[in-house]
Amino acid sequence: MNNEYIRERERLIAEDRSRRVDALALAQATDAEKRADEIVRRIRSEENETVWGPDAPPIPGSMHVFPGMGFLTARETIVKTKLFEIASKMPKGALLHAHLDAMVNARVLLHIALKYPAIHVRTTEKLTAGNVKATLPEFCPLPEREWTSVKSLTGSGYEPGTWVPLTSAREAFGFGGPEGFDDWVVAALTINPSEAYVTHNTTDKIWKKFGTTFMVARGMSRYFPVYEDYVREFFRSSVEDGISYIESRMPLWYKYMIGPDGQENVPHREWLLAYDRVMKEVKEEFAKQGRADAFIGSKIIYCTKRDATCEELEWYLEDCIALKQEFPHLICGFDLVGHEDPLKPLVYYIEPFKRFVQRQKEVDVDIPFIFHAGETLGDGTPADMNLYDAILLGTKRIGHGFSLVKHPRIMEICREREIAVEVCPISNEILRYTGSMPMHPLPVLMNQGIHVALSSDDPAMFGNMGLSFDFFQVLVASEVTGLITLREMGRDSLKYSCLDPEDKARALSLHDQRWSKLVEWITSEFADTLKT
Amino acid sequence: MNNEYIRERERLIAEDRSRRVDALALAQATDAEKRADEIVRRIRSEENETVWGPDAPPIPGSMHVFPGMGFLTARETIVKTKLFEIASKMPKGALLHAHLDAMVNARVLLHIALKYPAIHVRTTEKLTAGNVKATLPEFCPLPEREWTSVKSLTGSGYEPGTWVPLTSAREAFGFGGPEGFDDWVVAALTINPSEAYVTHNTTDKIWKKFGTTFMVARGMSRYFPVYEDYVREFFRSSVEDGISYIESRMPLWYKYMIGPDGQENVPHREWLLAYDRVMKEVKEEFAKQGRADAFIGSKIIYCTKRDATCEELEWYLEDCIALKQEFPHLICGFDLVGHEDPLKPLVYYIEPFKRFVQRQKEVDVDIPFIFHAGETLGDGTPADMNLYDAILLGTKRIGHGFSLVKHPRIMEICREREIAVEVCPISNEILRYTGSMPMHPLPVLMNQGIHVALSSDDPAMFGNMGLSFDFFQVLVASEVTGLITLREMGRDSLKYSCLDPEDKARALSLHDQRWSKLVEWITSEFADTLKT
Repeated sequence: MNNEYIRERERLIAEDRSRRVDALALAQATDAEKRADEIVRRIRSEENETVWGPDAPPIPGSMHVFPGMGFLTARETIVKTKLFEIASKMPKGALLHAHLDAMVNARVLLHIALKYPAIHVRTTEKLTAGNVKATLPEFCPLPEREWTSVKSLTGSGYEPGTWVPLTSAREAFGFGGPEGFDDWVVAALTINPSEAYVTHNTTDKIWKKFGTTFMVARGMSRYFPVYEDYVREFFRSSVEDGISYIESRMPLWYKYMIGPDGQENVPHREWLLAYDRVMKEVKEEFAKQGRADAFIGSKIIYCTKRDATCEELEWYLEDCIALKQEFPHLICGFDLVGHEDPLKPLVYYIEPFKRFVQRQKEVDVDIPFIFHAGETLGDGTPADMNLYDAILLGTKRIGHGFSLVKHPRIMEICREREIAVEVCPISNEILRYTGSMPMHPLPVLMNQGIHVALSSDDPAMFGNMGLSFDFFQVLVASEVTGLITLREMGRDSLKYSCLDPEDKARALSLHDQRWSKLVEWITSEFADTLKT
Repeated sequence: MNNEYIRERERLIAEDRSRRVDALALAQATDAEKRADEIVRRIRSEENETVWGPDAPPIPGSMHVFPGMGFLTARETIVKTKLFEIASKMPKGALLHAHLDAMVNARVLLHIALKYPAIHVRTTEKLTAGNVKATLPEFCPLPEREWTSVKSLTGSGYEPGTWVPLTSAREAFGFGGPEGFDDWVVAALTINPSEAYVTHNTTDKIWKKFGTTFMVARGMSRYFPVYEDYVREFFRSSVEDGISYIESRMPLWYKYMIGPDGQENVPHREWLLAYDRVMKEVKEEFAKQGRADAFIGSKIIYCTKRDATCEELEWYLEDCIALKQEFPHLICGFDLVGHEDPLKPLVYYIEPFKRFVQRQKEVDVDIPFIFHAGETLGDGTPADMNLYDAILLGTKRIGHGFSLVKHPRIMEICREREIAVEVCPISNEILRYTGSMPMHPLPVLMNQGIHVALSSDDPAMFGNMGLSFDFFQVLVASEVTGLITLREMGRDSLKYSCLDPEDKARALSLHDQRWSKLVEWITSEFADTLKT
């Protein structure tokens, strides 16, 4: 008798969801896709009870367990779920928002650094049981003549400020030996749950801790030999996670890296040459394994910091153009990085930006802006207003766009001009823009028809290596989002990348092929799920 | 040289904000209003540093101080600010989302109850220093023949489950005497910061605590003599806060209140008669004080619970119609209440609702639905989908609509049909739908041009008595929202109320007059603010 009501209801729901970027894909889904989607929904529904429900086993360090809960406490539980097994197997498409100095697992970075005798470590205070947790290590590669033979950071004779060779410091570490040393360094390189959810539980405070993790990491990753290993590890681990193409935001505000000789003397063009070389090597590696299609390649978004003066910025913009001229296949965009709330708004740089656009015309290059904008909880604050300037300056995509949902006209423009948003769910949660995934505004963007590329932002600091964790958190926190939605997000990450048309077409076609295999795998692996 | 850019930027901002319901008011604001608005912005800006900034004095119970922070810890600081002094003085318009059993300060309710010797209290466990905080008092008015002369709840001879006269129990309370008793009862009637922000920090958990506060309160407020005092206190305190009209959601799922004789025998029509009588008394009181215009009056939204069966609901719907026929000026709507996530979705009740609409036509009455819908963090869950049914059933307004921002078509319909949303910022924050005010989706709704009536929901449990606190929290957490926005929200609360056209016109005109006085007061009281 209420069939008519139900039909009207379905019409309204369809209307409401008709702008979603997955609407067409859902309408055109094959039976196999629908079956796999249903399997994923059932697994999610079951695990939302057995793993994340009120009667699920407790999770250490968290009083509150629910789907999409704080990532830092949930991580060890996530990796044991079937849904994560599926997320891990998904082809991810492109990784479009990735800070190059935050892409390698902290422990792996330390072990890369340990290979190089030039790298030394020091503290500015004498380490005691009482202060060791709160004291940061400082790393630096030294020229050979400055290498020391100090044996220990923690011996009674240690003079604060004295450099100790990394391997010695680790061996002789007085607070738990090498293992204790590794834990101490990793803690300084990452954000832990107690920081994010207790002691630094505001965006302002957690950004301060976040800043120190970069400072500590750079002592190692700015060493050119480490950098090459770092990029290699980043490419390899990303590809293993199902990422087929990467746009790195490269931290080019340092004018030089520290060379093998311990001198600050490696200019930007060497960074790019090495990047290109490593990319080719990794491609060849995969080709040798018969997986040539797994890695399409990588490009670079030139980044400097949003605390530069206009004069300083001019230098970087010219440098960016010069690099683009030399490496047209590598440089694909320009951006400013850093905490948007306290730092300079985009509008501050209008003059240099306008000149940059003009200069590009003169020398006939094309470097789109790909701006961070609206990574803020503010409403009408300068960081929130960055969205207006990003649009007016013609940004190709928007990095974060956390506050974009507040701006109906900007969302309309994003739809009209197909400006995709690089959404970083786990980053937003750890940096306290959202309390947990169910509070995240991503569904608002999706229902408004905004193209979204999920991104990991700074996984070295957050622990969300690859894209599987971000895919998982998004999938688990919505009843609307399913397998087909994630396929579209993956496709969109390629579609709105800076890949050349041919490569893009190839990447999309490979993505579709890999997705078909995923669908087959899900359907055979979890066939029983549909029986009950 | 970049004047052109700046003009283009202003155009884009104006376009983006052009749908806001305050757009016209902003355009037409008088110089006096603009001056007062600027004063408010300066005070906010100053207090955001001096009261809520990183160097502001610490706030007990909170490691993190910022504008729009958790209300329960911020409350004592809020009341000392200039901005709150201004918010307190604002005419609020209508209070449209207010659960009648949650509207009187907990301590005041207890003191009302103390007047009545029929009211007894008991516990089901023997109270000890160890369990007193976790043990709830149970209140009940008893028929005279069942009154006891037990002296103490906490004496060594107390048998759990035995009723003790309220005054005796309070006098002889073993954990801090009368003051300790009051604190114990108030703790059971309210949500404290440690519950909301630590032990029960999820919507599911805090709803459980929230539920017990109602159970405890009802032991007193369901006693008809208390109820009359309660309604009087509610009206008086609301009017003192600047509220001029109220639509109460009356908890009519109990078929009877407990009468003066201690028997469960007071039917719904008596509740309404008393409500009407008290309203008239309070109106007269204000008239005698020369403030006849301060209180336009109050109506009732008939409420039962969303756990009823369809058969049970039929009874309530017929009861609602009968009451509407007898009290056409009082009954103004119908709603279901209770935690949307676990309870029945609106779609479950389609058949009785359709019949209700049909029956109204037969007997020629008009009782709009004014549904709670989308008070959830879910995306595509039944609670989130309630928004579709609320719309299809023709809801006059939406209660909460927390997840409305996810639904572009529903927002469009709300704009087209002028369906206002009763937004309850502090309630949403305490019930953990949002981590804090800066995370609240209110700006999304406002920029989409949705009419909003700020509401307090259950201030007895939350401590946000009146509307000043909700106005404050909204004002402090946005750089866009200013005095003129709040004026429009107040006007909208009247405009989208169920007032008869004449009363509405009068209420709006009085609101405008009071607002002009507010503008004058701000301008003279804080004249110095503009000098610096």
